Amino acid sequence: MDKLPDLTPLRLAEDRLELLDQRRLPGAEEWIVCRDAGEVARAIEEMVVRGAPAIGIAAAYGLYLGCRRLGARGQDAAARGQLRARLTATRPTARNLFWALERMEAAARAHVQLTPEAFLGRLRAEAEAIWAEDVAANRAIAEHGAHPIGRGARILTHCNAGALATGGYGTALGVVRRAHEAGKGPVVLACETRPLLQGARLTAWELARDGIPVTLIADSMAAYFLGRGEVDLVLVGADRIAANGDTANKIGTYALAVLAAAHSVPFYVAAPTSTLDGALEDGTGIIIEHRHPDEVLCLAGVRIAPAGVPAANPAFDVTPHRYITAIITERGVHRPPFRRSLAAE
Amino acid sequence: MDKLPDLTPLRLAEDRLELLDQRRLPGAEEWIVCRDAGEVARAIEEMVVRGAPAIGIAAAYGLYLGCRRLGARGQDAAARGQLRARLTATRPTARNLFWALERMEAAARAHVQLTPEAFLGRLRAEAEAIWAEDVAANRAIAEHGAHPIGRGARILTHCNAGALATGGYGTALGVVRRAHEAGKGPVVLACETRPLLQGARLTAWELARDGIPVTLIADSMAAYFLGRGEVDLVLVGADRIAANGDTANKIGTYALAVLAAAHSVPFYVAAPTSTLDGALEDGTGIIIEHRHPDEVLCLAGVRIAPAGVPAANPAFDVTPHRYITAIITERGVHRPPFRRSLAAE
Repeated sequence: MDKLPDLTPLRLAEDRLELLDQRRLPGAEEWIVCRDAGEVARAIEEMVVRGAPAIGIAAAYGLYLGCRRLGARGQDAAARGQLRARLTATRPTARNLFWALERMEAAARAHVQLTPEAFLGRLRAEAEAIWAEDVAANRAIAEHGAHPIGRGARILTHCNAGALATGGYGTALGVVRRAHEAGKGPVVLACETRPLLQGARLTAWELARDGIPVTLIADSMAAYFLGRGEVDLVLVGADRIAANGDTANKIGTYALAVLAAAHSVPFYVAAPTSTLDGALEDGTGIIIEHRHPDEVLCLAGVRIAPAGVPAANPAFDVTPHRYITAIITERGVHRPPFRRSLAAE
Repeated sequence: MDKLPDLTPLRLAEDRLELLDQRRLPGAEEWIVCRDAGEVARAIEEMVVRGAPAIGIAAAYGLYLGCRRLGARGQDAAARGQLRARLTATRPTARNLFWALERMEAAARAHVQLTPEAFLGRLRAEAEAIWAEDVAANRAIAEHGAHPIGRGARILTHCNAGALATGGYGTALGVVRRAHEAGKGPVVLACETRPLLQGARLTAWELARDGIPVTLIADSMAAYFLGRGEVDLVLVGADRIAANGDTANKIGTYALAVLAAAHSVPFYVAAPTSTLDGALEDGTGIIIEHRHPDEVLCLAGVRIAPAGVPAANPAFDVTPHRYITAIITERGVHRPPFRRSLAAE
């Protein structure tokens, strides 16, 4: 990678993947070390690392570490298949996870005739390339996305589509970052993003770290500020985008899209093409992960609801394409009809 | 009061007001004792007691306790005016607070020629009547509101418009309670209601206590369930209703109203006529309380955001009348145009 981003949630070494423990931010900056595919899989499940592109990179490196642990058996398709199955089973919604593992498998198949050492070198290089390309994609997304952003734009965002969710720099927050670097002075209204508070803990942290003005709100307050005309655009990331533009993203995104439309505020999605799932005609085929109810019932280790009361915890929702003004990828700004504009990718 | 409700957030005695400390629920059931108007005012400010009708009752009793403390000086309009000013200054949005204090002042003026003892007796009786009438209003609201609710209705609610928010029984949750008592088997989806979690802490608690099925969700998940067709109606309380039907209620209500409309799901408001503010033409005149940012920045005593990041904390929003299917008061079910249907009240 020619320019290592200032903030990244991953560090790659020959024998390990180090992950910034995003469950602990912003209270503590701790790195967790994973030495094989199983440890990486657990880290993805437990959301040590989260964000569709970052999960993809971590899983790719996890596959490399798993093959490394297997030695010569890493060149056996069935053994590799078990590693892939373990990594694939971690989280169902983000496309990038599957995309990265498919790409790693293609690289493995292409180099299976090499010596074990050379084979591993190729796998490691492929995972590093996935990371480097993700950072480059983010910079391109930021460039495309920042262009139309006006001076002093008031940007509402949800969850964390920042450096921490990607290889570095970020998708939605990459656009904000670029607009800030270009002197446009964007200001951000960040939804806290219950249940896991990625907005409060991660987005607020990484924007404040870069000196970008950010104000935190509870998720339910977005409509209040939209209604007062205090939001110029909504800008979010994505976990999976179907061929027609239907977009899965963190739970709460769909509400923001409907609310933005009701207030005639543009709604932008920023994501690399690795998030596109051309095999899905529309969003109905996207599997929505349901996580443990305790994420809703407890907060910061404190139980907030009475004992015995159940909670629902869908982790994502799907925003129908008709609510999306544009989808920004590293290739450019795609406008409706998305089926046509995305097909070119 | 002929029938004391099973659950009430207040207990009145000759020399004191006891308030169930709603900040501590559901973890602990503790009662706070207030012996004068200042203590009641502080309890309202700190949300020991909350919910528009409950605040009104508490303030009325606070005025009685204040006059009692003043002795013969309670019959002096200026001294009483100071007590009223203190109680009025606690929270700006709920209409019931001002309504109850105006009613207490009218009673005081009507009986100012009585002996101090008889005068105080009349004030106490007036405050008790405000309580009793609120409970009766809730039962009438429940009767009117439960009538059109179908078998097994899936009801989405926000914040707590229950027994704890009123003299007892509740407004929106009174309707749910009545439908439950009538064997209709309603099930409730309760928004947790950040920042202070009245949905998670209070609504879930009082519904579970009555054996009414309730599932907790984060506020941002409402659109997901609306989109899946899993909500039959949205039902909330109110803090102030303008002449045209524009309704102030807990922050997040406006979002639910817009989302309900987008999914063709009816949106009902349940409130006693003491919540109506006929002097306000529309919702633009409603003062929205902004509370301390720490309510957003911290949760259950734990700081969730990085140091130095600001938060906004509007405590209410206004839902324009066009999003409201009907307003249910103790007099009946009011449908648009509300300016005409509410004027009769």
